[in-house]
Amino acid sequence: MNSSDFQKQMEFLIEIDKLKSIQRKTKLIHEDRLENDAEHSWHLAMMALVLQGHANKEVNLFKVIKMLLVHDLVEIDAGDTFAYDEQGHADKAEREQKAAERIFGLLPEEQAKELMELWVEFEERATPEAAFASSLDRLQPIIHNYHNDGASWRQYGITSGQVLKRNAGINDGSTKLWSHAQELVQQAVDKGILQQ
Amino acid sequence: MNSSDFQKQMEFLIEIDKLKSIQRKTKLIHEDRLENDAEHSWHLAMMALVLQGHANKEVNLFKVIKMLLVHDLVEIDAGDTFAYDEQGHADKAEREQKAAERIFGLLPEEQAKELMELWVEFEERATPEAAFASSLDRLQPIIHNYHNDGASWRQYGITSGQVLKRNAGINDGSTKLWSHAQELVQQAVDKGILQQ
Repeated sequence: MNSSDFQKQMEFLIEIDKLKSIQRKTKLIHEDRLENDAEHSWHLAMMALVLQGHANKEVNLFKVIKMLLVHDLVEIDAGDTFAYDEQGHADKAEREQKAAERIFGLLPEEQAKELMELWVEFEERATPEAAFASSLDRLQPIIHNYHNDGASWRQYGITSGQVLKRNAGINDGSTKLWSHAQELVQQAVDKGILQQ
Repeated sequence: MNSSDFQKQMEFLIEIDKLKSIQRKTKLIHEDRLENDAEHSWHLAMMALVLQGHANKEVNLFKVIKMLLVHDLVEIDAGDTFAYDEQGHADKAEREQKAAERIFGLLPEEQAKELMELWVEFEERATPEAAFASSLDRLQPIIHNYHNDGASWRQYGITSGQVLKRNAGINDGSTKLWSHAQELVQQAVDKGILQQ
């Protein structure tokens, strides 16, 4: 570790403060404002810690948490793409790849490689850890919408069919959490905060 | 794991969304608003991931990160106590102990115990993990103030002597980071954004 490596680490840590300014489409549960990516990432890490026992397969929890901590960093450059924005998803991969190279590339080489690999693994959803991390990332906005009167579902005219289709992958990481998500969706329809 | 345990986990995860509404006294680097505890906790976890090599002693990084994720949860009830508020620190321990019992107590017993123990270990600063986690918690607002024109230092009329005295414990977790903190303080005085 030379002093230039330390400078790179500090530069990265200062740069990623920008994640606190990237707004998602989901509102908080207890306050009427949009959630940002940094607090969202913290919440997912806490969900992993508490809900690990519901993963379909045994997971390396530390790896799941590291993935969740870094999974949205690319949005500093690429912005948040709304789950139901099909047009926005067309060039999402390309925009995010460039962002990953720039942002992780601020770090010393070995650390840049480690964080890039965690991000790629999350995106590919092929390992038990990535599948479980992705389940939490999809479940969390359903919980938020259920408890904040369907704020973004109603704002964007989302239907229960869209929510179920978009989030069916929760089942790959956790059958238990997918079952819970389906219950919340049905109850939200019953309460009239989500269109049938 | 019975269904009541799952309900407890969900209740806890919904309750801790409130951490996103607990404002600190520190402003962000790239945006003119106060930081909240949830995004702060995320940033500290990232700092641990990147700066682990600078800990004085070998640490269990996963434990450091878990501590940092939960270390401020008590502030949902007890509020943020400003580092330089000596009066606020008088009954801080008692307020936070009650908060810890209520908030961690929402979880199933075994998980409540695990998270409570992490929080107590962080507070006691006696292990290498707690010392390093605490170093990061103290260094971060110095970095923020240095890069946002000394916003809270100037607002509250803080002096360099106060910053050095209050944060000398950084040295217990990382001599390297304490040396960096001292450099930032000196440079902040030279730039005129921190009183001598």
